[in-house]
Amino acid sequence: MKINIDGKTSDFKAVWYEEPVIKMIDQRILPESFKIVDIRNTKELYDAIKDMTVRGAPSIGAAAAYGVAQARALGKDIEEAGKLIKSARPTAYDLFFAVDFVLQHKEEASRYAEKYVDSIVERSRLIGVNGNELIGNSKKILTHCNAGALASVDYGTALSPIRKAKESGKNPFVWVDETRPRLQGARLTAWELVQEGIEHKVIADNAAGFLMYRGQVDLAIVGADRITKNGDFANKIGTYEKAVLAKENGVSFYVAAPLSTFDFSIENGRDIPIEVRSEEEVKDIKGMAISPRESHAYNPAFDVTPNRYVTAYITEYGVYKSSELQKLKGKGKESIIEQIGNI
Amino acid sequence: MKINIDGKTSDFKAVWYEEPVIKMIDQRILPESFKIVDIRNTKELYDAIKDMTVRGAPSIGAAAAYGVAQARALGKDIEEAGKLIKSARPTAYDLFFAVDFVLQHKEEASRYAEKYVDSIVERSRLIGVNGNELIGNSKKILTHCNAGALASVDYGTALSPIRKAKESGKNPFVWVDETRPRLQGARLTAWELVQEGIEHKVIADNAAGFLMYRGQVDLAIVGADRITKNGDFANKIGTYEKAVLAKENGVSFYVAAPLSTFDFSIENGRDIPIEVRSEEEVKDIKGMAISPRESHAYNPAFDVTPNRYVTAYITEYGVYKSSELQKLKGKGKESIIEQIGNI
Repeated sequence: MKINIDGKTSDFKAVWYEEPVIKMIDQRILPESFKIVDIRNTKELYDAIKDMTVRGAPSIGAAAAYGVAQARALGKDIEEAGKLIKSARPTAYDLFFAVDFVLQHKEEASRYAEKYVDSIVERSRLIGVNGNELIGNSKKILTHCNAGALASVDYGTALSPIRKAKESGKNPFVWVDETRPRLQGARLTAWELVQEGIEHKVIADNAAGFLMYRGQVDLAIVGADRITKNGDFANKIGTYEKAVLAKENGVSFYVAAPLSTFDFSIENGRDIPIEVRSEEEVKDIKGMAISPRESHAYNPAFDVTPNRYVTAYITEYGVYKSSELQKLKGKGKESIIEQIGNI
Repeated sequence: MKINIDGKTSDFKAVWYEEPVIKMIDQRILPESFKIVDIRNTKELYDAIKDMTVRGAPSIGAAAAYGVAQARALGKDIEEAGKLIKSARPTAYDLFFAVDFVLQHKEEASRYAEKYVDSIVERSRLIGVNGNELIGNSKKILTHCNAGALASVDYGTALSPIRKAKESGKNPFVWVDETRPRLQGARLTAWELVQEGIEHKVIADNAAGFLMYRGQVDLAIVGADRITKNGDFANKIGTYEKAVLAKENGVSFYVAAPLSTFDFSIENGRDIPIEVRSEEEVKDIKGMAISPRESHAYNPAFDVTPNRYVTAYITEYGVYKSSELQKLKGKGKESIIEQIGNI
């Protein structure tokens, strides 16, 4: 992704590897500060995933793939490392997918970690190419959370079609849900759109429904943290709300994700583990209390949206309805290795 | 309302009058600070309504009623004062209702302003009595924004039935939507519930839908800023989202409001003016930027919910379905004076 720092444009990925150091953009402090964090061992990686220094399902997967390679480079027990890395967060499927993939190639862990991440970048790019076909000229697009380049190493999942639409001269406009509690929309998606010169406005999450009701949203595109066999999917809390409102108002609702986010071992969304994060993420903003100290909060980080609210899934292989997702399973042929190779 | 200050419980109203000074709880700085603001003239009142020192449709109405009385006490042109006060905010109907009522009794403005505010308090209390009949034991109730005592001088509209339920030993639990951008839920509703010892948890607005989907919400009660003839109503941005989600999930959705919020001159919600407030309310939280400075925001302060999403309206006269609202019009008999007297 292009990033403008002090008037100079540079090219960055959200995560990369300079053996034995994993490098990542610190996603906790954007847009105020742009900083690269060095991850020197598995414990640091575990913390960086857990505290969301790196976030977004495909980027978490990339960091995890490098984590296994790093453990090997440092002469550590890589099975143990993989186990710790997998325990950092429960919902995003890419985390498990990536660790298992590199563990299957432990003898050449670094090479396969790079192969995995290269594949994620190429898959993200292809999601853009495929999704762009759904976007007409001058469309108003709603997105939730950040499913951009920061979330998927480069290009993005939900933002990749929008980047491609801009690149092909279509002039898209983006309504950016601020995405409480962690404000990934207001902080990260808005920041990416500024870098790309894509027109946008930030809105309170509460406003998305009313904009749809008034006909000010042409389509919605979101990312996903895990998609089950029937097309139910977990994504950032609030996604379910926007999906229901899109259906109620006749707005097309797309989910953009690479094959690494599809968990064909789970039949439907009821079985996806939903991470509950700390009360403080709701009760405080940037360390300042917004609620009475006596009050408690409840903070589910994700929700599950049933397949009936999804118009289609934008993948690197094409655009599918939920009834067609079985075809996608074929692309992976049950084998993680083949899935990585097969684009 | 009972307020615990430094371990001592006192009784307060959100707004009161010590001629010629209007007194109000500063709702911008709760829950960190509890402060009473003195309003000494019409310009100060205009600012206090506009900047939301006083907020909530019935409390705005009360402040406006006192404002006309104050202008008279100060020997000012009260028609001019009424006009300025009415221009402070466009959506809440109580503002216009209250000013017109006191202007109709300009010779005894102070007495009629008090009569108006006493009536609002009694109406709020009765909303609690009537709404309590809808609340079973140990119910989980979702509310949005603050429709509590702060918003309606005392008791509240949406919170009045919950207070009454607690008082009658029913042990209600409240899910408090934090209500971005101004966080009236996290700041004000949570604070009121702490004062009353009512069990509650604050949630990101994004989480309300998922809680309904998982069966963790038994009913929803919200306030209103203006209700039209057919039952469509304006309320804090996000209300429409929660109403759609309640219907989708079979959760009863109630609107609690006194007759002063009903605008029978408007057929339906399309004609309610919707205030758009400053971008900064979205882009900043407590003066700290959360979005890139290059990004813009869009900040509609209210939305309109069509009557089809409302289970019933809880009023001081009883509980009505939208098809029955004409009966309520009869209670007011077209005349503001009779409306005030008629409870």
